[in-house]
Amino acid sequence: MIGEATDLVGYSLYLDLLGPLARGRTRHDYDLGAEEARVRRAMELAGEGKTVALVCSGDAGIYAMATLVFELLDNGDLPDAARRIAIEVSPGISALQAAAARTGAPLGHDFCTISLSDLLTPWDVIEARIQAAAEADFVIAFYNPVSKKRRTQLAHARDLLLRHRPADTPVILATNLGREGESVRIVELAALNIDDVDMLTVVIVGSSESRVVTSGEGRRFVYTPRGYAGKAGSAMKRDAAE
Amino acid sequence: MIGEATDLVGYSLYLDLLGPLARGRTRHDYDLGAEEARVRRAMELAGEGKTVALVCSGDAGIYAMATLVFELLDNGDLPDAARRIAIEVSPGISALQAAAARTGAPLGHDFCTISLSDLLTPWDVIEARIQAAAEADFVIAFYNPVSKKRRTQLAHARDLLLRHRPADTPVILATNLGREGESVRIVELAALNIDDVDMLTVVIVGSSESRVVTSGEGRRFVYTPRGYAGKAGSAMKRDAAE
Repeated sequence: MIGEATDLVGYSLYLDLLGPLARGRTRHDYDLGAEEARVRRAMELAGEGKTVALVCSGDAGIYAMATLVFELLDNGDLPDAARRIAIEVSPGISALQAAAARTGAPLGHDFCTISLSDLLTPWDVIEARIQAAAEADFVIAFYNPVSKKRRTQLAHARDLLLRHRPADTPVILATNLGREGESVRIVELAALNIDDVDMLTVVIVGSSESRVVTSGEGRRFVYTPRGYAGKAGSAMKRDAAE
Repeated sequence: MIGEATDLVGYSLYLDLLGPLARGRTRHDYDLGAEEARVRRAMELAGEGKTVALVCSGDAGIYAMATLVFELLDNGDLPDAARRIAIEVSPGISALQAAAARTGAPLGHDFCTISLSDLLTPWDVIEARIQAAAEADFVIAFYNPVSKKRRTQLAHARDLLLRHRPADTPVILATNLGREGESVRIVELAALNIDDVDMLTVVIVGSSESRVVTSGEGRRFVYTPRGYAGKAGSAMKRDAAE
Protein backbone atom coordinates (compact mmCIF):
# COMPACT_ATOMS: atom_id res chain seq x y z
CA MET A 1 0.00 0.00 0.00
CA ILE A 2 2.93 2.34 0.58
CA GLY A 3 3.72 1.79 -3.10
CA GLU A 4 0.48 3.59 -4.04
CA ALA A 5 0.82 6.51 -1.62
CA THR A 6 1.43 10.10 -2.65
CA ASP A 7 2.05 11.11 0.98
CA LEU A 8 3.71 9.46 3.96
CA VAL A 9 2.88 10.39 7.55
CA GLY A 10 4.87 8.99 10.43
CA TYR A 11 7.62 9.13 13.00
CA SER A 12 10.79 10.23 11.18
CA LEU A 13 12.78 7.10 12.07
CA TYR A 14 10.12 4.84 10.53
CA LEU A 15 9.94 6.91 7.35
CA ASP A 16 13.75 6.71 7.11
CA LEU A 17 13.53 2.93 7.42
CA LEU A 18 11.43 2.81 4.25
CA GLY A 19 14.55 3.64 2.25
CA PRO A 20 13.95 3.77 -1.53
CA LEU A 21 10.24 3.07 -1.02
CA ALA A 22 9.85 6.62 0.33
CA ARG A 23 11.33 8.25 -2.76
CA GLY A 24 9.03 10.46 -4.83
CA ARG A 25 6.43 10.70 -2.04
CA THR A 26 5.78 13.73 0.13
CA ARG A 27 7.01 13.14 3.68
CA HIS A 28 5.18 14.47 6.74
CA ASP A 29 7.64 13.82 9.54
CA TYR A 30 6.64 13.67 13.19
CA ASP A 31 8.53 13.23 16.43
CA LEU A 32 7.66 10.43 18.84
CA GLY A 33 4.44 11.12 20.72
CA ALA A 34 1.89 13.57 19.28
CA GLU A 35 0.09 10.51 17.93
CA GLU A 36 -3.30 12.11 17.69
CA ALA A 37 -1.92 15.05 15.70
CA ARG A 38 -0.17 12.64 13.36
CA VAL A 39 -3.28 10.57 12.67
CA ARG A 40 -5.47 13.65 12.28
CA ARG A 41 -3.07 15.10 9.73
CA ALA A 42 -3.06 11.84 7.77
CA MET A 43 -6.86 11.81 7.67
CA GLU A 44 -7.05 15.47 6.67
CA LEU A 45 -4.58 14.94 3.84
CA ALA A 46 -6.65 11.99 2.62
CA GLY A 47 -9.72 14.22 2.79
CA GLU A 48 -7.90 16.66 0.50
CA GLY A 49 -7.53 13.92 -2.10
CA LYS A 50 -4.08 12.58 -1.29
CA THR A 51 -3.38 8.86 -1.06
CA VAL A 52 -1.80 8.70 2.37
CA ALA A 53 0.16 5.95 4.09
CA LEU A 54 0.20 6.33 7.88
CA VAL A 55 3.35 4.43 8.75
CA CYS A 56 3.96 2.75 12.10
CA SER A 57 6.02 -0.18 13.37
CA GLY A 58 4.77 -3.64 14.29
CA ASP A 59 1.13 -4.39 13.53
CA ALA A 60 -0.86 -1.16 13.09
CA GLY A 61 -3.82 -2.85 14.77
CA ILE A 62 -2.07 -4.03 17.96
CA TYR A 63 -1.43 -1.21 20.45
CA ALA A 64 -0.68 1.02 17.48
CA MET A 65 -2.07 3.72 15.20
CA ALA A 66 -5.01 2.04 13.43
CA THR A 67 -7.33 2.18 16.42
CA LEU A 68 -6.72 5.92 16.72
CA VAL A 69 -7.92 6.41 13.14
CA PHE A 70 -11.26 4.89 14.09
CA GLU A 71 -11.43 6.76 17.40
CA LEU A 72 -11.08 10.01 15.46
CA LEU A 73 -13.62 8.89 12.87
CA ASP A 74 -16.05 8.09 15.69
CA ASN A 75 -15.40 10.97 18.07
CA GLY A 76 -12.95 13.49 16.70
CA ASP A 77 -13.87 16.87 15.29
CA LEU A 78 -12.65 16.12 11.80
CA PRO A 79 -13.47 18.12 8.64
CA ASP A 80 -16.32 16.44 6.72
CA ALA A 81 -13.98 15.50 3.88
CA ALA A 82 -11.74 13.61 6.32
CA ARG A 83 -14.74 11.53 7.42
CA ARG A 84 -15.48 10.38 3.90
CA ILE A 85 -12.09 8.86 3.19
CA ALA A 86 -11.59 5.20 2.24
CA ILE A 87 -9.59 3.35 4.90
CA GLU A 88 -7.52 0.19 4.49
CA VAL A 89 -5.53 -1.36 7.34
CA SER A 90 -2.47 -3.51 6.59
CA PRO A 91 -1.42 -6.04 9.23
CA GLY A 92 2.21 -6.51 10.23
CA ILE A 93 4.46 -8.42 12.61
CA SER A 94 3.82 -7.23 16.14
CA ALA A 95 6.63 -7.20 18.71
CA LEU A 96 5.35 -10.30 20.50
CA GLN A 97 5.57 -12.31 17.30
CA ALA A 98 9.09 -11.15 16.49
CA ALA A 99 10.16 -11.94 20.06
CA ALA A 100 8.44 -15.33 19.93
CA ALA A 101 10.03 -16.32 16.61
CA ARG A 102 13.47 -15.32 17.87
CA THR A 103 13.16 -17.59 20.90
CA GLY A 104 11.20 -20.60 19.60
CA ALA A 105 7.44 -20.96 19.90
CA PRO A 106 6.27 -19.56 23.24
CA LEU A 107 2.90 -18.59 21.69
CA GLY A 108 2.15 -22.16 20.64
CA HIS A 109 -0.99 -22.26 22.75
CA ASP A 110 -3.52 -19.79 24.22
CA PHE A 111 -1.98 -16.41 24.99
CA CYS A 112 -3.00 -12.87 25.83
CA THR A 113 -1.54 -9.41 25.57
CA ILE A 114 -1.74 -6.87 28.39
CA SER A 115 -0.51 -3.29 28.27
CA LEU A 116 0.88 -2.20 31.64
CA SER A 117 0.47 1.48 30.78
CA ASP A 118 -1.96 3.09 33.22
CA LEU A 119 -2.05 6.33 31.27
CA LEU A 120 -5.40 5.56 29.61
CA THR A 121 -6.49 2.49 31.58
CA PRO A 122 -7.09 2.43 35.36
CA TRP A 123 -4.69 0.21 37.27
CA ASP A 124 -7.51 -1.87 38.79
CA VAL A 125 -8.64 -2.91 35.30
CA ILE A 126 -5.08 -3.88 34.36
CA GLU A 127 -4.60 -5.76 37.62
CA ALA A 128 -7.84 -7.69 37.11
CA ARG A 129 -6.60 -8.77 33.70
CA ILE A 130 -3.25 -9.94 35.06
CA GLN A 131 -5.08 -11.84 37.79
CA ALA A 132 -7.45 -13.49 35.31
CA ALA A 133 -4.61 -14.40 32.93
CA ALA A 134 -2.58 -15.81 35.83
CA GLU A 135 -5.44 -17.97 37.10
CA ALA A 136 -6.40 -19.25 33.64
CA ASP A 137 -2.74 -19.96 32.82
CA PHE A 138 -2.46 -17.93 29.62
CA VAL A 139 0.95 -17.20 28.16
CA ILE A 140 1.14 -13.41 28.64
CA ALA A 141 2.83 -10.75 26.52
CA PHE A 142 3.26 -7.49 28.41
CA TYR A 143 3.44 -4.35 26.27
CA ASN A 144 4.60 -1.02 27.74
CA PRO A 145 6.06 -2.87 30.74
CA VAL A 146 7.71 0.21 32.23
CA SER A 147 8.13 3.89 31.42
CA LYS A 148 10.43 6.58 32.75
CA LYS A 149 8.00 7.34 35.56
CA ARG A 150 6.38 3.93 35.93
CA ARG A 151 8.42 1.07 37.41
CA THR A 152 6.23 -0.80 39.89
CA GLN A 153 3.57 -2.48 37.69
CA LEU A 154 5.80 -5.16 36.21
CA ALA A 155 7.16 -6.17 39.63
CA HIS A 156 3.61 -6.40 40.89
CA ALA A 157 2.63 -8.56 37.89
CA ARG A 158 5.63 -10.84 38.49
CA ASP A 159 4.75 -11.32 42.16
CA LEU A 160 1.12 -12.01 41.31
CA LEU A 161 2.09 -14.54 38.64
CA LEU A 162 4.46 -16.33 41.02
CA ARG A 163 1.44 -17.27 43.11
CA HIS A 164 0.05 -19.24 40.14
CA ARG A 165 2.97 -20.63 38.16
CA PRO A 166 6.39 -22.13 38.94
CA ALA A 167 9.38 -19.98 39.89
CA ASP A 168 11.28 -21.34 36.87
CA THR A 169 8.56 -20.39 34.36
CA PRO A 170 10.47 -19.05 31.33
CA VAL A 171 10.26 -15.32 30.65
CA ILE A 172 11.46 -13.72 27.43
CA LEU A 173 12.81 -10.16 27.45
CA ALA A 174 13.16 -8.79 23.92
CA THR A 175 14.37 -5.30 23.04
CA ASN A 176 15.03 -3.52 19.74
CA LEU A 177 14.14 -6.55 17.63
CA GLY A 178 15.60 -6.36 14.15
CA ARG A 179 17.39 -3.11 14.98
CA GLU A 180 20.72 -2.05 16.32
CA GLY A 181 21.16 -2.99 19.96
CA GLU A 182 18.86 -6.01 19.67
CA SER A 183 18.73 -8.02 22.86
CA VAL A 184 16.81 -11.22 23.59
CA ARG A 185 17.11 -13.00 26.92
CA ILE A 186 15.42 -15.96 28.57
CA VAL A 187 15.18 -15.71 32.37
CA GLU A 188 13.18 -17.42 35.08
CA LEU A 189 10.06 -15.72 36.42
CA ALA A 190 11.36 -15.53 39.99
CA ALA A 191 14.57 -13.90 38.71
CA LEU A 192 12.83 -11.27 36.58
CA ASN A 193 14.64 -8.03 37.43
CA ILE A 194 12.77 -4.86 36.54
CA ASP A 195 16.06 -3.06 35.89
CA ASP A 196 16.62 -5.37 32.91
CA VAL A 197 13.45 -4.02 31.26
CA ASP A 198 13.08 -0.71 29.47
CA MET A 199 10.27 1.07 27.60
CA LEU A 200 11.04 -0.76 24.36
CA THR A 201 11.11 -4.25 25.86
CA VAL A 202 8.41 -6.82 25.20
CA VAL A 203 8.07 -9.26 28.08
CA ILE A 204 6.56 -12.70 27.37
CA VAL A 205 5.80 -14.87 30.39
CA GLY A 206 5.24 -18.57 29.69
CA SER A 207 2.29 -20.55 31.01
CA SER A 208 2.82 -23.35 33.51
CA GLU A 209 3.17 -25.64 30.48
CA SER A 210 5.88 -23.61 28.71
CA ARG A 211 9.26 -25.31 28.60
CA VAL A 212 12.86 -24.54 27.78
CA VAL A 213 14.59 -26.95 25.40
CA THR A 214 18.24 -26.84 24.37
CA SER A 215 18.93 -27.85 20.78
CA GLY A 216 21.79 -30.10 19.74
CA GLU A 217 23.75 -27.04 18.70
CA GLY A 218 23.40 -25.67 22.25
CA ARG A 219 20.81 -22.98 21.66
CA ARG A 220 18.04 -22.50 24.24
CA PHE A 221 14.47 -22.21 22.98
CA VAL A 222 11.15 -21.65 24.74
CA TYR A 223 7.99 -23.36 23.53
CA THR A 224 4.45 -23.92 24.72
CA PRO A 225 3.04 -27.31 23.70
CA ARG A 226 -0.06 -27.41 21.52
CA GLY A 227 -2.13 -29.28 24.05
CA TYR A 228 -2.77 -29.09 27.71
CA ALA A 229 -2.91 -32.74 28.68
CA GLY A 230 0.00 -32.37 31.06
CA LYS A 231 3.48 -31.69 29.67
CA ALA A 232 4.19 -32.22 26.00
CA GLY A 233 4.90 -35.94 26.08
CA SER A 234 1.31 -36.93 26.57
CA ALA A 235 -0.03 -34.33 24.16
CA MET A 236 2.05 -35.93 21.45
CA LYS A 237 0.16 -39.16 21.68
CA ARG A 238 -2.40 -37.71 19.34
CA ASP A 239 -1.94 -35.43 16.38
CA ALA A 240 -3.64 -32.05 16.21
CA ALA A 241 -5.61 -32.72 13.04
CA GLU A 242 -9.33 -33.26 13.54
CA MET B 1 14.30 -18.08 4.39
CA ILE B 2 12.46 -20.02 1.68
CA GLY B 3 14.87 -18.40 -0.77
CA GLU B 4 17.75 -20.32 0.83
CA ALA B 5 16.03 -23.70 1.07
CA THR B 6 17.00 -26.79 -0.94
CA ASP B 7 13.86 -28.62 0.25
CA LEU B 8 10.28 -27.61 0.95
CA VAL B 9 8.03 -29.57 3.30
CA GLY B 10 4.36 -28.73 3.64
CA TYR B 11 0.73 -29.16 2.79
CA SER B 12 0.49 -29.26 -1.02
CA LEU B 13 -1.82 -26.25 -1.30
CA TYR B 14 0.65 -24.05 0.61
CA LEU B 15 3.58 -25.20 -1.53
CA ASP B 16 1.52 -24.42 -4.64
CA LEU B 17 0.88 -20.93 -3.28
CA LEU B 18 4.62 -20.25 -3.27
CA GLY B 19 4.52 -20.06 -7.08
CA PRO B 20 7.89 -19.27 -8.66
CA LEU B 21 9.57 -19.26 -5.22
CA ALA B 22 9.21 -23.07 -5.13
CA ARG B 23 11.05 -23.59 -8.41
CA GLY B 24 14.37 -25.47 -8.26
CA ARG B 25 13.67 -26.81 -4.76
CA THR B 26 12.73 -30.37 -3.88
CA ARG B 27 9.10 -30.58 -2.81
CA HIS B 28 7.90 -32.92 -0.07
CA ASP B 29 4.13 -32.70 -0.35
CA TYR B 30 1.78 -33.68 2.46
CA ASP B 31 -1.98 -33.85 2.81
CA LEU B 32 -3.80 -31.96 5.56
CA GLY B 33 -3.32 -33.57 8.95
CA ALA B 34 -0.34 -35.86 9.56
CA GLU B 35 1.35 -32.84 11.10
CA GLU B 36 3.76 -34.78 13.25
CA ALA B 37 4.95 -36.86 10.28
CA ARG B 38 5.48 -33.70 8.27
CA VAL B 39 7.54 -31.97 10.95
CA ARG B 40 9.55 -35.12 11.66
CA ARG B 41 10.39 -35.46 7.98
CA ALA B 42 11.52 -31.84 7.80
CA MET B 43 13.81 -32.32 10.80
CA GLU B 44 15.23 -35.57 9.43
CA LEU B 45 15.98 -33.95 6.07
CA ALA B 46 17.76 -31.11 7.86
CA GLY B 47 19.72 -33.72 9.81
CA GLU B 48 20.83 -35.17 6.49
CA GLY B 49 22.30 -31.80 5.52
CA LYS B 50 19.47 -30.27 3.55
CA THR B 51 18.36 -26.69 4.10
CA VAL B 52 14.67 -27.23 4.73
CA ALA B 53 11.76 -24.79 4.80
CA LEU B 54 8.77 -26.17 6.71
CA VAL B 55 5.97 -24.14 5.16
CA CYS B 56 2.69 -23.35 6.91
CA SER B 57 0.07 -20.62 6.73
CA GLY B 58 -0.42 -17.74 9.15
CA ASP B 59 2.21 -17.32 11.86
CA ALA B 60 4.16 -20.57 12.36
CA GLY B 61 4.33 -19.80 16.08
CA ILE B 62 0.59 -19.29 16.71
CA TYR B 63 -1.40 -22.56 16.79
CA ALA B 64 0.85 -23.79 14.00
CA MET B 65 3.86 -25.96 13.16
CA ALA B 66 6.76 -24.29 15.01
CA THR B 67 5.75 -25.54 18.44
CA LEU B 68 5.66 -29.10 17.12
CA VAL B 69 9.30 -28.79 16.03
CA PHE B 70 10.28 -28.04 19.62
CA GLU B 71 7.99 -30.73 21.05
CA LEU B 72 9.79 -33.27 18.86
CA LEU B 73 13.18 -31.86 19.78
CA ASP B 74 12.24 -32.18 23.45
CA ASN B 75 10.33 -35.46 23.47
CA GLY B 76 10.37 -37.17 20.08
CA ASP B 77 12.50 -40.17 19.16
CA LEU B 78 14.49 -38.33 16.50
CA PRO B 79 17.75 -39.50 14.93
CA ASP B 80 20.72 -37.79 16.61
CA ALA B 81 21.50 -35.82 13.46
CA ALA B 82 17.98 -34.36 13.50
CA ARG B 83 18.57 -33.09 17.03
CA ARG B 84 21.65 -31.14 16.04
CA ILE B 85 20.03 -29.04 13.35
CA ALA B 86 20.00 -25.24 13.42
CA ILE B 87 16.44 -23.90 13.74
CA GLU B 88 15.13 -20.48 12.71
CA VAL B 89 11.48 -19.49 13.06
CA SER B 90 9.99 -16.82 10.78
CA PRO B 91 6.92 -14.97 12.03
CA GLY B 92 3.93 -14.27 9.80
CA ILE B 93 0.45 -12.78 9.76
CA SER B 94 -1.85 -14.93 11.86
CA ALA B 95 -5.53 -15.26 10.98
CA LEU B 96 -6.64 -12.96 13.80
CA GLN B 97 -4.49 -10.15 12.43
CA ALA B 98 -5.73 -10.57 8.88
CA ALA B 99 -9.32 -10.61 10.15
CA ALA B 100 -8.69 -7.58 12.34
CA ALA B 101 -7.10 -5.54 9.55
CA ARG B 102 -9.97 -6.35 7.21
CA THR B 103 -12.52 -5.01 9.69
CA GLY B 104 -10.75 -2.09 11.36
CA ALA B 105 -8.85 -2.34 14.64
CA PRO B 106 -10.66 -4.72 17.00
CA LEU B 107 -7.30 -5.70 18.60
CA GLY B 108 -6.52 -2.11 19.59
CA HIS B 109 -6.39 -3.01 23.27
CA ASP B 110 -5.75 -6.12 25.42
CA PHE B 111 -6.80 -9.33 23.71
CA CYS B 112 -6.38 -13.08 24.03
CA THR B 113 -6.55 -16.11 21.80
CA ILE B 114 -8.34 -19.30 22.81
CA SER B 115 -8.47 -22.52 20.81
CA LEU B 116 -11.82 -24.26 21.24
CA SER B 117 -10.40 -27.61 20.13
CA ASP B 118 -10.71 -30.12 22.95
CA LEU B 119 -8.63 -32.71 21.13
CA LEU B 120 -5.45 -31.99 23.11
CA THR B 121 -6.82 -29.74 25.85
CA PRO B 122 -9.50 -30.77 28.37
CA TRP B 123 -12.75 -28.81 28.08
CA ASP B 124 -12.60 -27.64 31.70
CA VAL B 125 -9.29 -25.87 31.00
CA ILE B 126 -10.77 -24.22 27.91
CA GLU B 127 -13.91 -23.21 29.76
CA ALA B 128 -11.88 -21.68 32.60
CA ARG B 129 -10.02 -19.56 30.05
CA ILE B 130 -13.23 -18.35 28.42
CA GLN B 131 -14.61 -17.52 31.86
CA ALA B 132 -11.45 -15.61 32.85
CA ALA B 133 -11.34 -13.72 29.56
CA ALA B 134 -15.03 -12.87 29.85
CA GLU B 135 -14.68 -11.53 33.40
CA ALA B 136 -11.52 -9.53 32.65
CA ASP B 137 -13.11 -8.12 29.47
CA PHE B 138 -10.43 -9.17 26.98
CA VAL B 139 -11.14 -9.01 23.26
CA ILE B 140 -11.12 -12.73 22.37
CA ALA B 141 -10.03 -14.46 19.17
CA PHE B 142 -11.35 -18.02 18.99
CA TYR B 143 -9.31 -20.42 16.87
CA ASN B 144 -10.72 -23.83 15.83
CA PRO B 145 -14.21 -22.65 16.78
CA VAL B 146 -15.95 -25.76 15.44
CA SER B 147 -15.04 -28.99 13.69
CA LYS B 148 -17.09 -31.58 11.85
CA LYS B 149 -17.81 -33.40 15.09
CA ARG B 150 -17.63 -30.47 17.49
CA ARG B 151 -20.40 -27.85 17.42
CA THR B 152 -21.36 -27.04 21.00
CA GLN B 153 -18.28 -25.23 22.39
CA LEU B 154 -18.77 -21.95 20.53
CA ALA B 155 -22.42 -21.72 21.54
CA HIS B 156 -21.39 -22.32 25.13
CA ALA B 157 -18.73 -19.61 24.86
CA ARG B 158 -21.28 -17.17 23.40
CA ASP B 159 -23.75 -17.80 26.20
CA LEU B 160 -21.05 -17.43 28.82
CA LEU B 161 -19.82 -14.17 27.28
CA LEU B 162 -23.36 -12.76 27.13
CA ARG B 163 -23.41 -12.83 30.92
CA HIS B 164 -20.48 -10.37 30.96
CA ARG B 165 -20.80 -8.12 27.94
CA PRO B 166 -23.61 -6.41 26.03
CA ALA B 167 -25.83 -8.30 23.57
CA ASP B 168 -24.71 -5.94 20.80
CA THR B 169 -20.98 -6.55 21.36
CA PRO B 170 -19.48 -6.76 17.85
CA VAL B 171 -18.31 -10.18 16.66
CA ILE B 172 -16.21 -10.69 13.54
CA LEU B 173 -16.53 -13.89 11.52
CA ALA B 174 -13.72 -14.21 8.99
CA THR B 175 -13.24 -17.14 6.61
CA ASN B 176 -10.74 -17.86 3.84
CA LEU B 177 -8.96 -14.55 4.21
CA GLY B 178 -6.99 -13.59 1.14
CA ARG B 179 -8.23 -16.68 -0.70
CA GLU B 180 -11.12 -17.59 -2.93
CA GLY B 181 -14.43 -17.58 -1.07
CA GLU B 182 -13.27 -14.93 1.39
CA SER B 183 -16.03 -13.89 3.75
CA VAL B 184 -15.93 -11.31 6.52
CA ARG B 185 -19.02 -10.46 8.56
CA ILE B 186 -19.74 -8.30 11.59
CA VAL B 187 -22.61 -9.58 13.74
CA GLU B 188 -23.86 -8.95 17.27
CA LEU B 189 -22.87 -11.34 20.03
CA ALA B 190 -26.46 -12.29 20.86
CA ALA B 191 -27.08 -13.07 17.17
CA LEU B 192 -24.00 -15.25 16.72
CA ASN B 193 -25.30 -18.31 14.88
CA ILE B 194 -23.05 -21.36 15.05
CA ASP B 195 -24.20 -22.44 11.60
CA ASP B 196 -22.47 -19.37 10.16
CA VAL B 197 -19.11 -20.67 11.44
CA ASP B 198 -16.99 -23.41 9.89
CA MET B 199 -13.62 -24.99 10.67
CA LEU B 200 -11.73 -22.29 8.81
CA THR B 201 -13.45 -19.35 10.47
CA VAL B 202 -11.71 -17.08 12.95
CA VAL B 203 -14.14 -15.57 15.42
CA ILE B 204 -13.17 -12.32 17.16
CA VAL B 205 -15.44 -11.14 19.98
CA GLY B 206 -15.05 -7.52 21.02
CA SER B 207 -14.67 -6.39 24.62
CA SER B 208 -17.37 -4.31 26.29
CA GLU B 209 -15.47 -1.26 24.97
CA SER B 210 -15.35 -2.35 21.32
CA ARG B 211 -17.46 -0.24 19.00
CA VAL B 212 -18.81 -0.26 15.47
CA VAL B 213 -18.24 2.90 13.45
CA THR B 214 -19.54 3.58 9.95
CA SER B 215 -17.21 5.58 7.73
CA GLY B 216 -18.34 8.41 5.49
CA GLU B 217 -18.22 6.01 2.54
CA GLY B 218 -20.68 3.75 4.37
CA ARG B 219 -18.34 0.96 5.42
CA ARG B 220 -18.72 -0.56 8.90
CA PHE B 221 -15.58 -0.99 11.00
CA VAL B 222 -14.97 -2.45 14.46
CA TYR B 223 -12.40 -0.93 16.78
CA THR B 224 -11.38 -1.20 20.40
CA PRO B 225 -10.20 2.11 21.88
CA ARG B 226 -6.66 2.35 23.20
CA GLY B 227 -7.74 3.17 26.72
CA TYR B 228 -10.28 1.95 29.15
CA ALA B 229 -11.47 5.15 30.77
CA GLY B 230 -15.01 4.56 29.62
CA LYS B 231 -15.84 4.73 25.93
CA ALA B 232 -13.43 6.32 23.49
CA GLY B 233 -14.41 9.94 23.97
CA SER B 234 -12.85 10.25 27.37
CA ALA B 235 -9.77 8.24 26.44
CA MET B 236 -9.08 10.78 23.74
CA LYS B 237 -8.63 13.55 26.25
CA ARG B 238 -5.07 12.42 26.67
CA ASP B 239 -2.62 11.14 24.13
CA ALA B 240 -1.00 7.73 24.43
CA ALA B 241 2.60 8.95 24.51
CA GLU B 242 4.29 8.77 27.87
